[in-house]
Amino acid sequence: MTRAAQAPSYAPTERTVPTRARERAAYDHETVHAILDSAYLCHLGFIRDGAPVVLPTLFARVEDRLYLHGSTGSRPLREAGRAHGTDGAAPGLPVCVTVTHVDGIVLARSAFHHSINYRCVVVHGTAHQVTDTAEKTAALDALVDHVLPGRAADSRPGNDKELAATAVIRLDLREVSAKIRTGGPNDEPEDLSLPYWSGVLPVSPVYGAPIPSDDLAPGIAEPAYLPGRR
Amino acid sequence: MTRAAQAPSYAPTERTVPTRARERAAYDHETVHAILDSAYLCHLGFIRDGAPVVLPTLFARVEDRLYLHGSTGSRPLREAGRAHGTDGAAPGLPVCVTVTHVDGIVLARSAFHHSINYRCVVVHGTAHQVTDTAEKTAALDALVDHVLPGRAADSRPGNDKELAATAVIRLDLREVSAKIRTGGPNDEPEDLSLPYWSGVLPVSPVYGAPIPSDDLAPGIAEPAYLPGRR
Repeated sequence: MTRAAQAPSYAPTERTVPTRARERAAYDHETVHAILDSAYLCHLGFIRDGAPVVLPTLFARVEDRLYLHGSTGSRPLREAGRAHGTDGAAPGLPVCVTVTHVDGIVLARSAFHHSINYRCVVVHGTAHQVTDTAEKTAALDALVDHVLPGRAADSRPGNDKELAATAVIRLDLREVSAKIRTGGPNDEPEDLSLPYWSGVLPVSPVYGAPIPSDDLAPGIAEPAYLPGRR
Repeated sequence: MTRAAQAPSYAPTERTVPTRARERAAYDHETVHAILDSAYLCHLGFIRDGAPVVLPTLFARVEDRLYLHGSTGSRPLREAGRAHGTDGAAPGLPVCVTVTHVDGIVLARSAFHHSINYRCVVVHGTAHQVTDTAEKTAALDALVDHVLPGRAADSRPGNDKELAATAVIRLDLREVSAKIRTGGPNDEPEDLSLPYWSGVLPVSPVYGAPIPSDDLAPGIAEPAYLPGRR
């Protein structure tokens, strides 16, 4: 048994094994969690009235669970709660949560071999509303800290009214895969001498200098956890 | 009639009118197209075996049409073609295509009012495989140029074998909305004096210096359309 095979890993399933470029797929916790933890925005997919819907939303990972939140009035969050055994349907909301980082644009000599370097995690499963107050409060702290570690403790916690207005849903990490492309273009050997530039144009998100609120009380310094601070 | 009302606009539908924060929604072509054209990655949502799937993929806009591409072996592209009237189902593949830019992290005094500044477009509709060769070729050029304008003409065009291996799907822009959040935090009045920093941390994607392929032929300069060039 190789060392890699011993690392904790999500079991591949029919829908987490890609039909193409299988060598780009990864299932080990370390790779999957690193991709999730360096993002804070996901795209949440669900089915409404028989049609697919994809919405951007914040998320946080806590161990083997993803948490998403929103207004108790938002449609998917309502459905994740309402589906609990009211009409014989399976409880919860079937979802797909996808997190993508773009790392570079890959320019090949041929149009066909142009590509993107990326790191992506796709999670399939059923989301459930979190009703336990302690779990909900911890999830909301995690959502703030996932964007900016340290911020949850440096802001006013939610009060009862705010907690009641916020729905939190949980998606357990079970059916999960990462897909990663790195490196340069895969040009055809006969194209290497063509007179076109080829290589990779790196892309990364960058923070700008923080913009304080106009009504910020005097004497409040930029906190140390702000990555873009001057 | 106001001037804004005369601008070309997508008609709102039940599923493109948000249940919350309706003031953030926009339907005019100018706003929607600007968001689409400043991105090249979308998240494609579709239904497979009754469950939602969300995958990142490149796209290009040409007038009122979005084009996506992939291997003819990829599952959603196969389904977009195969569904053409073979089993009595409506032809094409019902999809949701979502494009999101994150512009900033909004830090409020209260955890509850933390938010994200973003620009997002959501397109609902049915995708169809493009079978016309001229449209397919133009779409593939648009896909390359949407990432880097000018690159399609500066690379080897696809040959017959490559065209045959690539599927292109089209999604007409009909049921479309943009959603935009800008500005600072919306703190409660009674929170303004709390001792927490508040404001916006800007975020934007930045290109690094291009990395040429190891086997780049000598004498080929970095092309002028590369945004990160030295």
